[in-house]
Amino acid sequence: MLVVHKYGGTSVGDVERIENVTNRVAKAREAGDDIVVVVSAMSGETNKLIGFAEHFTKEPAKKEMDMLLSSGERVTAALLSIALQARGYDAIAMTGRGAGIVTTDSHTYARIESIDPRAMHAAIKAGKIVIVAGFQGVNKDGSVTTLGRGGSDLSAVALAGALKADQCEIYSDVDGIYTTDPRIEPNAKKLDTISYDEMLELSSLGAKVLQSRSVELAKKLNVKLYAKSSFSDNVGTLITEESENMEEVLVSGVVLDKNQARVTLRGVSDRPGIAAEIFTMLAEANIHVDMIIQNMGTDGSTNLGFTVPHSEHENAKKLMASFDHDIEGMDFDEHVCKVSVVGVGMKSHSGVAATAFTVLANSNINIQMISTSEIKISMVIDEKYGELAIRTLHEAYELDK
Amino acid sequence: MLVVHKYGGTSVGDVERIENVTNRVAKAREAGDDIVVVVSAMSGETNKLIGFAEHFTKEPAKKEMDMLLSSGERVTAALLSIALQARGYDAIAMTGRGAGIVTTDSHTYARIESIDPRAMHAAIKAGKIVIVAGFQGVNKDGSVTTLGRGGSDLSAVALAGALKADQCEIYSDVDGIYTTDPRIEPNAKKLDTISYDEMLELSSLGAKVLQSRSVELAKKLNVKLYAKSSFSDNVGTLITEESENMEEVLVSGVVLDKNQARVTLRGVSDRPGIAAEIFTMLAEANIHVDMIIQNMGTDGSTNLGFTVPHSEHENAKKLMASFDHDIEGMDFDEHVCKVSVVGVGMKSHSGVAATAFTVLANSNINIQMISTSEIKISMVIDEKYGELAIRTLHEAYELDK
Repeated sequence: MLVVHKYGGTSVGDVERIENVTNRVAKAREAGDDIVVVVSAMSGETNKLIGFAEHFTKEPAKKEMDMLLSSGERVTAALLSIALQARGYDAIAMTGRGAGIVTTDSHTYARIESIDPRAMHAAIKAGKIVIVAGFQGVNKDGSVTTLGRGGSDLSAVALAGALKADQCEIYSDVDGIYTTDPRIEPNAKKLDTISYDEMLELSSLGAKVLQSRSVELAKKLNVKLYAKSSFSDNVGTLITEESENMEEVLVSGVVLDKNQARVTLRGVSDRPGIAAEIFTMLAEANIHVDMIIQNMGTDGSTNLGFTVPHSEHENAKKLMASFDHDIEGMDFDEHVCKVSVVGVGMKSHSGVAATAFTVLANSNINIQMISTSEIKISMVIDEKYGELAIRTLHEAYELDK
Repeated sequence: MLVVHKYGGTSVGDVERIENVTNRVAKAREAGDDIVVVVSAMSGETNKLIGFAEHFTKEPAKKEMDMLLSSGERVTAALLSIALQARGYDAIAMTGRGAGIVTTDSHTYARIESIDPRAMHAAIKAGKIVIVAGFQGVNKDGSVTTLGRGGSDLSAVALAGALKADQCEIYSDVDGIYTTDPRIEPNAKKLDTISYDEMLELSSLGAKVLQSRSVELAKKLNVKLYAKSSFSDNVGTLITEESENMEEVLVSGVVLDKNQARVTLRGVSDRPGIAAEIFTMLAEANIHVDMIIQNMGTDGSTNLGFTVPHSEHENAKKLMASFDHDIEGMDFDEHVCKVSVVGVGMKSHSGVAATAFTVLANSNINIQMISTSEIKISMVIDEKYGELAIRTLHEAYELDK
């Protein structure tokens, strides 16, 4: 079996932890697997380097940043290879370039364009454990590029795809994906399996575990993904294609997003182009909009609501104040949160949304906005009820069972 | 004027010191020079990384070590480029690969084979300040290689040669080459000029300032070398070709080497091959021999003396004990030191050696061994007289004048 392991920053945070990773890789090797390991920078290293750069300017050149930041993963890859060799294993460390990863030109947020797996295949065939510096590749000019935050997950998934690996195991300090945040609901349970789409919708639950871009890529390349802890032998969570079996489970998880502020535009003229005008304006100001809700209007006008992250609430407020036509008024509320219920089972089962509305009503929680997709229901409520809503929903869908 | 600057680890030890280097480069730029800057890793970084590797094994694979260690210089190069850009200068950071440096295959002690200066020339022509990560290149397979300790000096000299730069300025925390160690003789004076050969003979005086290999390369490529401090505006010392003018100066410096232990083999048979046998044996045991002295013998036998570093004294002793033929006896003394007098003027002036012997005798310092080369006289004496000998010789040759 050919397996790609990926170890995040906390898993390789110091030499003792690299020793621990060495043990895990060695064990998998002894079990007979061919292994490619992708590593992140030691935890804290990337932020330290960013801090150095920001000493000089808040906007360092992206090309230089890539040269700077790519060094962290190179260090870890070299160290892990050295550690494995010290234990008598045949290992070889490769940079992104060495592993054949070619990216777009966009420094600091490059996308992988192609992977030439020949060097890796040759090393695997020669019996070597291949260690690859994550987060990086080279553009067509041969300059080092990086893939953005969480880019090592992306490297791992892309390499697993290019190598046609049997599975890709993403190790962090969390042992899988939970039905909700255990800090909010102590009865939260680890999921054995979850679909790519559910994982994407639950991204905030998995943010510390798996980056969304890597889940998207795994889905596209059909890479079997495991989220596991490098500090335990727990089986982790398998993220894979949707199966019929999954649909028997109505809901996989509930998730709270407290980083939300609500903007409601009242009495918006019901004529074409208004929404486009508003959201183009917000986009041009680099304000990230999350939920957008517009109902059918009455009397030639409608209400238009949207949410933005807290950090962009003030900017959104200022910007909207300058919007002086075709609306009657607006109000803002930064004391809101979003609770979401996610599950592929919703597709085939009715009543999932009704259950959510009912149990929240029973707890006297007023729902300000509702938005649904095929596998997700999101509700904006007063932020002070966020945790209560999560516990209520978690119980209602029997996620603790 | 095209100038190569090289800044060592202490000169770029933290962001404030990189800021200081930025000021120096900016000033040179404002004066109208084209500038290529070669940088070392921030002080302590390389040792930190070596420490990490040695946690796993005392003999890490050299290929991995190169990937590991080359990261330090990349970080500094990127940071200095960012700092210059933040000040409004057009700068570009290059790795060894980017600067076109191709080396031999020998990981961790590669030699530069060729430099393709086109990328640097293009950047210079475009008005950019070029910042190059020192200490590294790539071999023909495209793997990163490093040039060994002090390799950044070598990078700087080699780049200056390839670019046909007008001069190469090596910055450290010392402002030049002194007539002797100022900690021994407070009247030591900074030299304005010294020849390549003298610099090589005085290597222990200049060890903190300039690595011997880079002086040799500068001599070969005829690169005008300045040793300067990055913490002052002192003019530094010019290391260059010998000139007639220099020969008027009898002696450039005197130097003390306390890391010496003496081995004397008494009554060595005066037949061919004995010395070869002894030194082959020592070489095979990786014992580094410094001075070797053999006089014409009498009565078919002679005395053979040599010195080794303290750390190898015990090994040399053990090894020689196993040598059981063709010698009458041996004695060892680890309480010795070597004092050397260096100067191109010796070539054309007689009496330099005589002065040394006379003044040491006047101080009741017994000379145990003498060895001379064209521009150097070395004497082994009791180590307790080392400092006194240096001060005596320094005064005798009027080096404080």
